[in-house]
Amino acid sequence: MQLSLAEKKILSDSIRDIKDFPQEGVVFKDITTLLNNKEAYQVLMNHLENRYRSYNLDYIAGIDSRGFIFGAALADRLKIGFVPVRKKGKLPSTTVCEKYELEYGYDEVEIHLDAFPKKDARVLLIDDLLATGGTANAASKLIKNVNANLIEVCFLLNLTFLSGATKIEKHAPVYSILEI
Amino acid sequence: MQLSLAEKKILSDSIRDIKDFPQEGVVFKDITTLLNNKEAYQVLMNHLENRYRSYNLDYIAGIDSRGFIFGAALADRLKIGFVPVRKKGKLPSTTVCEKYELEYGYDEVEIHLDAFPKKDARVLLIDDLLATGGTANAASKLIKNVNANLIEVCFLLNLTFLSGATKIEKHAPVYSILEI
Repeated sequence: MQLSLAEKKILSDSIRDIKDFPQEGVVFKDITTLLNNKEAYQVLMNHLENRYRSYNLDYIAGIDSRGFIFGAALADRLKIGFVPVRKKGKLPSTTVCEKYELEYGYDEVEIHLDAFPKKDARVLLIDDLLATGGTANAASKLIKNVNANLIEVCFLLNLTFLSGATKIEKHAPVYSILEI
Repeated sequence: MQLSLAEKKILSDSIRDIKDFPQEGVVFKDITTLLNNKEAYQVLMNHLENRYRSYNLDYIAGIDSRGFIFGAALADRLKIGFVPVRKKGKLPSTTVCEKYELEYGYDEVEIHLDAFPKKDARVLLIDDLLATGGTANAASKLIKNVNANLIEVCFLLNLTFLSGATKIEKHAPVYSILEI
């Protein structure tokens, strides 16, 4: 089910632009003003539930840490499990790890080797923002590396001018609720 | 409504002990095995919803980053807003900040100055684990510093031998689902 234009406007209007964060010249998309707006938050969660109810998913995987917010709430609505993909060093048991490039240097994300107890699990990966796609690309590889099926990758907001989706679409379809 | 013994057992059994993480001699309580267990996750969320439905809350505040998981799902169930309390440097707009001591050195948590748009907001603070209480104590101060009413502080698991609750109870009642 598609979002109506009125619903899209509620979501877009509730995300605020913060100039020069985290550094000069960058306009940061602040979603805390969507989350603390109960109307906008329900529009978002109702849409996610409507879209994914028929996907027969076993787990939602959320990317550290804003992906935890929608991801865990969606897993609860669908009555399935939630799995965190974390920055390096945060998960206590045996992990698999994937590096990805930043503008200067690199970063790493991890997932527990036994994150998906169900065999051939059907997994949706979720995060708030798709920019260059480095983190989501690494997270997608992790999910496939632990032998789960990555069914789709979902973002609240896609900064399409950065073409991040082209990286992710090698692994699974990309769905973005809003595009800029 | 109280958890039944059977429900408590489902929750306890789904949390695993990881020895020597993050350092030698520490036994880490790993809740990822509760989250990826759909039965246990529903027991937890049903209990949280049952307990807090009558509290007339306006917002759930969750502590970075495991508090985001239950906190955002509970806000969704109660159809209210969610507010993240974050580690320093992550929030893009004007914040208030609170330092707290670690074993060696200190850390800081932040909240947006305008985190709670509703006047005299009734807020529940939530996190996964209460140990010495340093982070939750600082987060409680932040919520009061931006003029919200801290109604209760809720933990999945309280390591009672560390007496963290005594710090937090100066601000608001403490509720722990499980105790060790």
